[in-house]
Amino acid sequence: MDVAGQQEDCLLPLQGFLSPLQNPRGSQGPGVWGRFPLASGRSWRAGAGLCARSAAAEVGGDLGVPRVTGRALSALPRSRTSHRRPASPAQPRRSHGQVQGSSAPVDVLGCSAGLFPGRISGWLSKPLKETATSVGPHQNVRGELLSEMKAENIKSFLRSFTALPHLAGTEQNLLLAKKIQTQWKEFGLDSADLVHYDVLLSYPNMTNANYISVMDEHGIEIFKTSYLEPPPEGYENVTNIVPPYNAFSPQGVPEGELVYVNYARTEDFFKLEREMNISCTGKIVIARYGKIFRGNKVKNAMLAGAIGIILYSDPADYSAPGVQPYPKGWNLPGTTAQRGNVLNLNGAGDPLTPGYPAKEYTFRLDVEDGVGIPQIPVHPIGYNDAEVLLRYLGGAAPPDASWKGSLDVDYNIGPGFTGHGSFRKVKMHVHNINKITRIYDVIGTIRGSVEPDRYVILGGHRDAWVFGGIDPTSGAAGLQEVVQSFGKLMSRGWRPRRTIIFASWDAEEFGLLGSTEWAEENVKTLQERGVAYINADSSIEGNYTLRVDCTPLLFQLVYKLTKEISSPDDGFESKSLYESWLEKDPSPENKTLPRISKLGSGSDFEAYFQRLGIASGRARYTKNRKTDTYSSYPMYHTIYETFELVEKFYDPTFSKQLAVAQLRGALVYELADSQIIPFNVQDYAKALQNYATSIYNLAKKHDQELRDHGVSFDALFSAVRNFSEAASDFHRRLAGVDLNNPTAVRIVNDQLMLLERAFIDPLGLPGRPFYRHIIFAPSSHNKYAGESFPGIFDAMFDIENKADPRSAWAEVKKQISIATFTIQAAAGTLKELL
Amino acid sequence: MDVAGQQEDCLLPLQGFLSPLQNPRGSQGPGVWGRFPLASGRSWRAGAGLCARSAAAEVGGDLGVPRVTGRALSALPRSRTSHRRPASPAQPRRSHGQVQGSSAPVDVLGCSAGLFPGRISGWLSKPLKETATSVGPHQNVRGELLSEMKAENIKSFLRSFTALPHLAGTEQNLLLAKKIQTQWKEFGLDSADLVHYDVLLSYPNMTNANYISVMDEHGIEIFKTSYLEPPPEGYENVTNIVPPYNAFSPQGVPEGELVYVNYARTEDFFKLEREMNISCTGKIVIARYGKIFRGNKVKNAMLAGAIGIILYSDPADYSAPGVQPYPKGWNLPGTTAQRGNVLNLNGAGDPLTPGYPAKEYTFRLDVEDGVGIPQIPVHPIGYNDAEVLLRYLGGAAPPDASWKGSLDVDYNIGPGFTGHGSFRKVKMHVHNINKITRIYDVIGTIRGSVEPDRYVILGGHRDAWVFGGIDPTSGAAGLQEVVQSFGKLMSRGWRPRRTIIFASWDAEEFGLLGSTEWAEENVKTLQERGVAYINADSSIEGNYTLRVDCTPLLFQLVYKLTKEISSPDDGFESKSLYESWLEKDPSPENKTLPRISKLGSGSDFEAYFQRLGIASGRARYTKNRKTDTYSSYPMYHTIYETFELVEKFYDPTFSKQLAVAQLRGALVYELADSQIIPFNVQDYAKALQNYATSIYNLAKKHDQELRDHGVSFDALFSAVRNFSEAASDFHRRLAGVDLNNPTAVRIVNDQLMLLERAFIDPLGLPGRPFYRHIIFAPSSHNKYAGESFPGIFDAMFDIENKADPRSAWAEVKKQISIATFTIQAAAGTLKELL
Repeated sequence: MDVAGQQEDCLLPLQGFLSPLQNPRGSQGPGVWGRFPLASGRSWRAGAGLCARSAAAEVGGDLGVPRVTGRALSALPRSRTSHRRPASPAQPRRSHGQVQGSSAPVDVLGCSAGLFPGRISGWLSKPLKETATSVGPHQNVRGELLSEMKAENIKSFLRSFTALPHLAGTEQNLLLAKKIQTQWKEFGLDSADLVHYDVLLSYPNMTNANYISVMDEHGIEIFKTSYLEPPPEGYENVTNIVPPYNAFSPQGVPEGELVYVNYARTEDFFKLEREMNISCTGKIVIARYGKIFRGNKVKNAMLAGAIGIILYSDPADYSAPGVQPYPKGWNLPGTTAQRGNVLNLNGAGDPLTPGYPAKEYTFRLDVEDGVGIPQIPVHPIGYNDAEVLLRYLGGAAPPDASWKGSLDVDYNIGPGFTGHGSFRKVKMHVHNINKITRIYDVIGTIRGSVEPDRYVILGGHRDAWVFGGIDPTSGAAGLQEVVQSFGKLMSRGWRPRRTIIFASWDAEEFGLLGSTEWAEENVKTLQERGVAYINADSSIEGNYTLRVDCTPLLFQLVYKLTKEISSPDDGFESKSLYESWLEKDPSPENKTLPRISKLGSGSDFEAYFQRLGIASGRARYTKNRKTDTYSSYPMYHTIYETFELVEKFYDPTFSKQLAVAQLRGALVYELADSQIIPFNVQDYAKALQNYATSIYNLAKKHDQELRDHGVSFDALFSAVRNFSEAASDFHRRLAGVDLNNPTAVRIVNDQLMLLERAFIDPLGLPGRPFYRHIIFAPSSHNKYAGESFPGIFDAMFDIENKADPRSAWAEVKKQISIATFTIQAAAGTLKELL
Repeated sequence: MDVAGQQEDCLLPLQGFLSPLQNPRGSQGPGVWGRFPLASGRSWRAGAGLCARSAAAEVGGDLGVPRVTGRALSALPRSRTSHRRPASPAQPRRSHGQVQGSSAPVDVLGCSAGLFPGRISGWLSKPLKETATSVGPHQNVRGELLSEMKAENIKSFLRSFTALPHLAGTEQNLLLAKKIQTQWKEFGLDSADLVHYDVLLSYPNMTNANYISVMDEHGIEIFKTSYLEPPPEGYENVTNIVPPYNAFSPQGVPEGELVYVNYARTEDFFKLEREMNISCTGKIVIARYGKIFRGNKVKNAMLAGAIGIILYSDPADYSAPGVQPYPKGWNLPGTTAQRGNVLNLNGAGDPLTPGYPAKEYTFRLDVEDGVGIPQIPVHPIGYNDAEVLLRYLGGAAPPDASWKGSLDVDYNIGPGFTGHGSFRKVKMHVHNINKITRIYDVIGTIRGSVEPDRYVILGGHRDAWVFGGIDPTSGAAGLQEVVQSFGKLMSRGWRPRRTIIFASWDAEEFGLLGSTEWAEENVKTLQERGVAYINADSSIEGNYTLRVDCTPLLFQLVYKLTKEISSPDDGFESKSLYESWLEKDPSPENKTLPRISKLGSGSDFEAYFQRLGIASGRARYTKNRKTDTYSSYPMYHTIYETFELVEKFYDPTFSKQLAVAQLRGALVYELADSQIIPFNVQDYAKALQNYATSIYNLAKKHDQELRDHGVSFDALFSAVRNFSEAASDFHRRLAGVDLNNPTAVRIVNDQLMLLERAFIDPLGLPGRPFYRHIIFAPSSHNKYAGESFPGIFDAMFDIENKADPRSAWAEVKKQISIATFTIQAAAGTLKELL
């Protein structure tokens, strides 16, 4: 909306506003912008921006591979040519010292466990338990795997992988892919391949920078936000740093009055529209980052009629008390802004090829029809700039303290500025460019010895907004160490029962694209053969305790394995990870167990779990949920996510990253090598009972309407009971299965593998065809959070305000019916016959 | 449209029109209607209509079970309690004489093969070939199964099952279900259960009969069509006969001018609208039955704007030259009309519960929102009545001879009557009632000894419009004999490797409801475990030669088995079924093979094949496609489909029904008991190459547009080549698989089982979410016919007339891309690893 020139009031503009091209507190203007060398062609690849030195460092010479102690890499036999025939299933597994293909004597006790010799315990001292889920010298192999993994190696990988930016679609990220591929081959994987897709990415326009301005009544820019963050010390000469932007924002220069919308959550807009009677139609809204996924904020703003949305990080959400801003501490400086995509893909992957892999032959939608691309401009700014915009907002006062951040402003809502500035408008300048760009996943495999057609996947992304010190490289470095350690086991002749697939995904930051496209390309085999997916994104988002989100099938395995891994926490020196985790974050429902949360989205497990129904889990170290009130870690998606941030402030000994990598690696090991897949079905039954109770309790708030509209949850509870009985029967049968009968073993394993699949409905959730899991979905109001019974929840959401109560309650009934059917059908898959 | 009274012309009405309540040629009026005792309650169940005698005959006493020669039924051991442990996979299968659980010496030579001792050959004399697909004494068991099956038994079942009407939703059909269940238990199945669903059915209103009238200009009915068919001899006292009607026609009394639309095919309406400039908007159309599924006719009429549609059977389509009408011959009498549903479900099953089983807890759509229910009244009439309506049609002459039937009328198009009758209108009176009604499937099982979790299904429907002499009972009787014969094998201790499921479906005539609901209820296990589905609808629609429609995976098995079954044809006394079939109906593409057609729909395999991607096939005896120009068999869906029709005219020796039952049974046997599933993947590759060539040839007619819009089939052909290579590699690997390694066997069997599944796209075809097979679908213009690459075909259909050529060709490109992806992905499933 262009209202410049309507009235004249050029005296005393908003105090504190600065002249164009001058920024507060030292952030850098467009003079620096020229250092961001966007290639003029299809992407930023090649060109002057990539110096010969860095290219050499990436593909050869010092590959950044940590030194292997004790064994030379060159001595590894090439496993591709040494596939063992599966052992006769009736015979016990070979004991470790008898493994074929390894001429060296085997170090059963893991003499190279050096780094934490007193802490990697449990698996060494515990007696072998022979159960249906663990036979033979299985635990020794797991112990060996864990002891192979070294914090020092993770540190070395992290340093190597964060030396340069690795934005998706750039030459530098391709070179890192090749480096990882090369290392995986050296580690001894059976294969390591690059797989490419041509997906829609979004970059800032290199000749026309994005910014937000304040326009006076003559149409003169009297304030401009900064383009770039000051680079951290030691990185001053690094090129190819993308400035803060919101990927997939459309181009646009909307101008209008500003409205402050708090976090731009659904409830924030309800508050504005329903209680405060403030309309955002035709306005530019400013929202603080935090609480929910930024794409949901943008969608909410669109639904509210806004013509643009500015996102900023308030210190209240991105600073901890008593902590200095980077580089002196780990708090957010005011000059930096959080990057991030603002798509509402709902699991579609590449916006132009929903449902299908973005290959050369694939039909592409026009960008206007692309999935989830917002229709209003979006741009992120730091809190220094935000403070300028917010300071003179007029209109209503904030409704309560929850609307106030910690800047020195009133947090008035608007619309528009107060007093003398009331004719001034905010103008957004967004010139991002969408480009179909080639991305590269690295896919490595260890072929299973007995069931090569059963896959356990460990995947995490490689692409980063800039250096990716935490996101994703704390995870990618750990993944590299997991792969190296599996390679060492293989060098001694070991090979897992099932196939292990390692994945270094590309373009996660642009909407989980690399992982989703690969899932789409391999959908048929993954549906048929996928046992589990373990995610390996950032391994730390804090350093307080463990955080796990996973399918209920994995609860027991996570408990068991965390008991076998040493706690990295101060004060828990001789205790297990499980013990520190339980003490620091007990489950709210059952204090005798540590908390495990539902899977939402926001990382690469999404396609595998929410679309395909492959049992999935993720684990990382996190903050203290009780005392740390900031949203995520402050430096999230900024230029300051460096190696030094991790090394100085988060995990100086790398022991937390090691513990997380050990847990991820041990999960993969157990899932791939246990004769019986270590899933617990009864935990799913309990979880279903809890979720059903929750949703029923929510519904009971509308007791009268339930009766008026004949809405009953009885069938749902009945199905849950049936499932529970089927689960008990199944475990009874499992306990008696003849482990010497390979077909009988495969039959129960098929049931275990396919149980998660049984919760998938090909019709998808209402309006979200690629979220197909009926029990879990990313919340419709916050993609990051997991919602149980999402179909029912969404049907009931805000039901008292729906225009047609009859059809609204009919939808609730329909969703209860679908959930009932799905659970009933899943119970059916646990039966032996029909 | 009511135009009565506009003008006066009451002299000399249409010559030959009869007064109300009087019908030509002896068909019966409403006086007879009262004999059709519709229960006043929820359905026709119970009540006076079902006499005590018939109830007794159905549930006890003389169960109609054919006498078993040689062995007493009571001597059958109960297999439920005698499950064998699977034999050690490393040992050769037991030879036949050593089978456990049978104390009687085994009749290897099948001494009870009596009926055709000289003709059941092949499998007795052929040497055992040891291949990957047949090991051990497998062929002997198959031979024994075939020799157990007796024409005399099929005859006896047919007589028993056709004694009374068995319309879906009636008490009589429930009693038949119970009778079949009882017999299956007696035959020795491990289980036989009734499974119910509450689906939407449609019946005539018992107090307000349907008919068509001609109204004069004063609004007086001067002609009415008949309500009922004269019952066949011997059936005069049978009650519960539903009069001819079109199920799911909405209620309505539209009145308007009549237009003759030939077969109401897409091309017929194109001719009328585009070439003859005749609009059907606001008219009642009359179409002859034949060529395409009647539901497509109704849909086409709706799209053309018609307000009602009358369907009739023209003698040109339902009579053979020189044949007498029933009862003297098998031609259609003029007093009878073809019943049938007119839904366009596109595979949804119950119209109110698309995608989910119609159980007690299931959410139901309002009938107005029900899937596929037409919006205009439809009613069928016989050709005596049709001749009256057609005789005085005015307007344009028929465009060519293909629009002329063989009634003694001009086949003018209309609209409206000619000459003095031009003010007269046709009025339809349709009062059908939709009712949610309980239906019953019978599900029987033989538990597999080695892989109980692998299912081979043999299913056919039980419900009939009236007596169902041909449709479906010629098939249901054969199914009963197959079950009995498997039971005999079981009584000797045999048990198949995989589980066999027998199904007697209900409500097929109302839209394949019983089979689709069961598929919906068991979708998860069927997806995971379904090896194959063999259909057992009518086994004869003619008596000339065999007709087979099946997945390419089954071609080789069908060739092989038909070589092992004796031909029932005159003149082929010592030859195989394969030989007579090949001679009478060679493949148009390859004269050295018999013709096998693509699967379309119109019977219960639909949900299994088109929605779930379970390899499927059907077989029946058919007419001579070269010389027999009539559509289907003349008495189709009339009251004259009796036991006598079959016995006197179609298959007096029941040898054709035996041959069909033997083929169906042998298919099931081979699929259930072969160590390696007997599918041939290379035939799928060849079929894909043929279909791709066909669709490309069709596209080439638009050569210029292909170039203008950048449409290429290269990727599709490339994917087909990749599939062919993968198929060859797979068969090479299959030939070398270690048959003593149960896991290795299961791995390749999983690939075979799941290959058809790989062609399923959960997103479905455009506008047809439950037709999910990308390679095959029922034609959008004729549900009965199979279309290959249906997505591409439909996108290209009539493309020269599409409003927006750019978007129309974009859709073609999209569909090529989807087909390419699907084939590529299916090829991926044939690979060992990724």
